[in-house]
Amino acid sequence: MDKLFSVPLKGGCITDVFALSSIDELMTAFAALPQDSFFVFDENSANVFPSLPERNLVLPPGEVEKNWASIDKILSRALSLGMARDSLFVGVGGGVILDMTAFASSLYMRGARCILVPTTLLSAVDATLGGKTGIDYGGAKNIVGTFYPAESILICPETLKTLSDREFRCGLGEVVKHAFLSADTRLYDFLMSNKDAILRRDNETVSEMIRLSLEVKIHYITRDPEEKKGIRSCLNLGHTFGHALEAMRGYSVSHGEGVAWGMARAFEAGARTGITSFEYAESSIDLIRAFGFDIDSKIESSEFPAFMAAIAKDKKKKGGEVKFILMDGQGSPVLKALDENTIKSVVL
Amino acid sequence: MDKLFSVPLKGGCITDVFALSSIDELMTAFAALPQDSFFVFDENSANVFPSLPERNLVLPPGEVEKNWASIDKILSRALSLGMARDSLFVGVGGGVILDMTAFASSLYMRGARCILVPTTLLSAVDATLGGKTGIDYGGAKNIVGTFYPAESILICPETLKTLSDREFRCGLGEVVKHAFLSADTRLYDFLMSNKDAILRRDNETVSEMIRLSLEVKIHYITRDPEEKKGIRSCLNLGHTFGHALEAMRGYSVSHGEGVAWGMARAFEAGARTGITSFEYAESSIDLIRAFGFDIDSKIESSEFPAFMAAIAKDKKKKGGEVKFILMDGQGSPVLKALDENTIKSVVL
Repeated sequence: MDKLFSVPLKGGCITDVFALSSIDELMTAFAALPQDSFFVFDENSANVFPSLPERNLVLPPGEVEKNWASIDKILSRALSLGMARDSLFVGVGGGVILDMTAFASSLYMRGARCILVPTTLLSAVDATLGGKTGIDYGGAKNIVGTFYPAESILICPETLKTLSDREFRCGLGEVVKHAFLSADTRLYDFLMSNKDAILRRDNETVSEMIRLSLEVKIHYITRDPEEKKGIRSCLNLGHTFGHALEAMRGYSVSHGEGVAWGMARAFEAGARTGITSFEYAESSIDLIRAFGFDIDSKIESSEFPAFMAAIAKDKKKKGGEVKFILMDGQGSPVLKALDENTIKSVVL
Repeated sequence: MDKLFSVPLKGGCITDVFALSSIDELMTAFAALPQDSFFVFDENSANVFPSLPERNLVLPPGEVEKNWASIDKILSRALSLGMARDSLFVGVGGGVILDMTAFASSLYMRGARCILVPTTLLSAVDATLGGKTGIDYGGAKNIVGTFYPAESILICPETLKTLSDREFRCGLGEVVKHAFLSADTRLYDFLMSNKDAILRRDNETVSEMIRLSLEVKIHYITRDPEEKKGIRSCLNLGHTFGHALEAMRGYSVSHGEGVAWGMARAFEAGARTGITSFEYAESSIDLIRAFGFDIDSKIESSEFPAFMAAIAKDKKKKGGEVKFILMDGQGSPVLKALDENTIKSVVL
């Protein structure tokens, strides 16, 4: 178990990120945790392990489960297990199960201990680190939640082997996003040079890709742990467009697909408003497309009002105005409001 | 509007406490808040005002309403009002409505703004300050919640005039508790000397009593903002016994009544275990009784198993053991586990 990073977050909290070389090593780590630890899996992540720790709850997978009813299940099990304020919640799974386990742990007795174990590429590079917890609510994604950094994150690339190609690609959407947001081109170049090894999930290549990707995320979140300076919100590149698509399509579009689609729209909007150079927009859209994302489909005219309504629910609204993240060039995001005509021109 | 205190709390947060001389002044303060502020009342607190701000929600009163269903009402209204992350929630009422409004505000977009306006004596001296938010869950009080200090607390003693004697006395239970916990005897002496003026709710006497009482609470919470050093938990004097009684009786016992009863039990248990001198226990129990609390009734033998089960759900459990707060003398609380026989001897 190697420590990759020790990340300072909100209110003096520190999250340690560890890499584990195999599922065996991960199970040994589970067994070494306090006896009253409580493990929350989804059905997919539970299947990755030959056996589960005794105090476990297995929830159905999927974004539609990211609601209070699931939190209620976690909390009531925790209560019936007699967990104390210093007991440990361990979330094992994709972003949904991790966000929910962390959310439940933040609420239980106003804050129990929490360790997160991402078993999807998306959650390994995105959802787990930074302390954002929550559920979807009233049709809006992650609108209800807390800031509550996990004390540790355990990343084991071997758990990613069972992902479907679609699930794996979802994570690649966030990795590509980090490549655009990085101040240097190491990750961008790494993706360009190692596309095939990445897509066949070569263990070492994937490990290095995760490490480089987390470096970018850490750079942003440590400069703005509570998301109050507008720096961290740049990690939402592609998310305003993407979330609106996901919400409107009832979450049949995955998060990574939504973000990939949303980034393409952000590059187009950037080019149209003169913020992004045409060449950078084009090569960036090509990189997204190279990893197999369907970013060329648009929405129907009849869907546009619902799309704008979903946009209006975005959390980044300040003083009534929704801000989009556009790219001024490599590693240089800017926040900008867009008029309805510009939005229409890139999504229709 | 006079500023009484500026209280540093968790994570660099500061709560300012203001005193307002009349309901008119309070309504003027409401009108000066941002236009998109959202006011949450209970039916009792709503009746105190000749008119309500436009963006309001009025919830039914009572501890039985302190559940997720009420939080759901607050959050869904906030969402339908289109509140942003920087919008303001204003809770107006007793402890239940304040804890819930603060809880909902802490969850909305992972933390919106929050101002609290206590309209009961209990919430003015107890529930409002310190950042504890939450709901009851699975039969346990305040077991689900967050730490989320309000940015301001507005205290207007004129709103207390409409309280029933029973409600007013509930708050006195916490005031008496603060008198025991204070390092000096100013509040203890003030209560002894002003009993009649307090019970007829003389405005100036009540204001001064609230100020002295808050001073004690502030002393404890600023030394232990996240309740991790065992200092702040001393504010729970009487609460372990009291909460168990409240939970067992289905909350027909009010919080203040429960705490008063619980403090009497804690003094008795302290005397039995040699921690509290017999004389201090006796005079303290007399002070509680002087404000009209029924502290001499006990529970039935048949209720004892349910009582112990409620005790076992207490949040102060660490490493599996429930700790009680006993008094070693004026201003000197100690945490101690009690065996079942000692508990039985004071509650039966």
